[in-house]
Amino acid sequence: MNDHRLFTALDLAGTFAFAISGAVAARNRGLDWFGVIVIAFTVACGGGVLRDLCLGAVPPAGLTDWRYLAVAMAAALMTIVASKLVVRLEHPVTLFDSLGLGLFAVTGAQKAMIFDHNAELAILLGVATAVGGGVMRDLLLNRVPVILRREIYASAALVAAAIEVAGERLGWTSSGRTWVALAACFTLRYLSLRYKWNLPRSSRHDGNGAD
Amino acid sequence: MNDHRLFTALDLAGTFAFAISGAVAARNRGLDWFGVIVIAFTVACGGGVLRDLCLGAVPPAGLTDWRYLAVAMAAALMTIVASKLVVRLEHPVTLFDSLGLGLFAVTGAQKAMIFDHNAELAILLGVATAVGGGVMRDLLLNRVPVILRREIYASAALVAAAIEVAGERLGWTSSGRTWVALAACFTLRYLSLRYKWNLPRSSRHDGNGAD
Amino acid sequence: MNDHRLFTALDLAGTFAFAISGAVAARNRGLDWFGVIVIAFTVACGGGVLRDLCLGAVPPAGLTDWRYLAVAMAAALMTIVASKLVVRLEHPVTLFDSLGLGLFAVTGAQKAMIFDHNAELAILLGVATAVGGGVMRDLLLNRVPVILRREIYASAALVAAAIEVAGERLGWTSSGRTWVALAACFTLRYLSLRYKWNLPRSSRHDGNGAD
Repeated sequence: MNDHRLFTALDLAGTFAFAISGAVAARNRGLDWFGVIVIAFTVACGGGVLRDLCLGAVPPAGLTDWRYLAVAMAAALMTIVASKLVVRLEHPVTLFDSLGLGLFAVTGAQKAMIFDHNAELAILLGVATAVGGGVMRDLLLNRVPVILRREIYASAALVAAAIEVAGERLGWTSSGRTWVALAACFTLRYLSLRYKWNLPRSSRHDGNGAD
Repeated sequence: MNDHRLFTALDLAGTFAFAISGAVAARNRGLDWFGVIVIAFTVACGGGVLRDLCLGAVPPAGLTDWRYLAVAMAAALMTIVASKLVVRLEHPVTLFDSLGLGLFAVTGAQKAMIFDHNAELAILLGVATAVGGGVMRDLLLNRVPVILRREIYASAALVAAAIEVAGERLGWTSSGRTWVALAACFTLRYLSLRYKWNLPRSSRHDGNGAD
Repeated sequence: MNDHRLFTALDLAGTFAFAISGAVAARNRGLDWFGVIVIAFTVACGGGVLRDLCLGAVPPAGLTDWRYLAVAMAAALMTIVASKLVVRLEHPVTLFDSLGLGLFAVTGAQKAMIFDHNAELAILLGVATAVGGGVMRDLLLNRVPVILRREIYASAALVAAAIEVAGERLGWTSSGRTWVALAACFTLRYLSLRYKWNLPRSSRHDGNGAD
């Protein structure tokens, strides 16, 4: 299997893991079947849609490639009919979620660079591709996006996107910089989960305070 | 009155019904006049704006055609100054809301097909046109979108968009497939309201659970 | 200093004031450092990004010009490490926020007119540029947008955008209509804060009612 096919496989596995995170959250809020599918699809494709709108790459790829919709629906149905299985799959899902996070950040940054845009946009859209769907999930489920509150998640995506952009400027090969970015993102994410790292809070207030 | 003019009239009547649903919800949350107008306009045009952004059809039609803004403002003002009348109009508003739902799904799918895109995108954007404004209303009013929680609403729009797309592939006339799609959407919506149908919930948790 | 350079300086000062409002709100909700930076940047650039997407002016200027990101990060860091200083700066921040509000409304309307669009779109996008970022801040912080509930804020932006568009139709010079629009918006905003003006509420219900 060459690198390109491996990245395609990883992309779909990451999409599946993202969709599972959406479906589980939607199920925990008691949404109906339609709601679970919508949230699963939103987490899987929302970030990419946001990126494509900002690049003018319309219609967004996530809305026209049936594989993403199929993967999201499979994740949603599995969560609805086999929730115990999904609980048992927690570890592989976390694994592919972390790989998907890095890969989405890399592909987001790549797409911006293919359109010949500057490094700032490439990094911003890399991060947006990786975390945009999760933010939309949290907005739809009526809660403050988890990436703004705790954990090293968006920061790991930021590291991946920055490595991708820096690698391109330094003349690394496409595969080479993708592997380095994936490894860095995955390691950072793994260590932060393992040792419960968080970014510092900006104040002592709790996250549910009134406005 | 030929079909085209009838559909234009239905489009504006549907827009009015959508705007009423936004204005009533905004009023119930105690927003100020500006807020009521914004929410009314958002429900009326939000789905179409989303669709046009995804198609690259900018600027979005809903923001440049003064009739939509005028209809939304009329609905908002009526809700503010004559709320008792609006309550009495509940039945006709529900009627036109159901017709608008089907028509928006059909026109959304049509516009994607005019731009020569595939069936998946046409169906997704048909549904997004029909329910996108309502989702934005619920986001702005800080609640989980009602279409993700209960009722046969988005599903009825999905049926209408799917009929429109399938009809086009089968070579039906434009008017013919629009009528079939409208009738199917309306019947499904009417029956679901009459018999209080809901999609199955994905779990026993209640919709207000914590994250 | 000629008018153009003065407006550029005002634009950055307004961006800074907008970012401060985001950073303070994010800090009060106990977000982590990343969250504070994201919300600050969102308030500063969100409205302009929305405008640019609706105009097809991609990639959005706010995402490619490093000065906006730098100003937003400076505001976020200042809020985190020197929150007492930010409290003492409340008055100048309110001053520049009001000036930024008017200037963003004017530049949003101008950009729509440069793309040769009609008056309705120019006014709508002027208001969206001015208040869109604040609405996104409130959505991310999980509350009903403050502009829909109270205060003369969006209305002041509306006045500025309308003056800009009317002035252009009446043949006023670009600098002339910008000054009039800024002065009107600032005066309206100042008086409304001074005398605690609000738009009328649409009902007696309180803003926290259930749906």
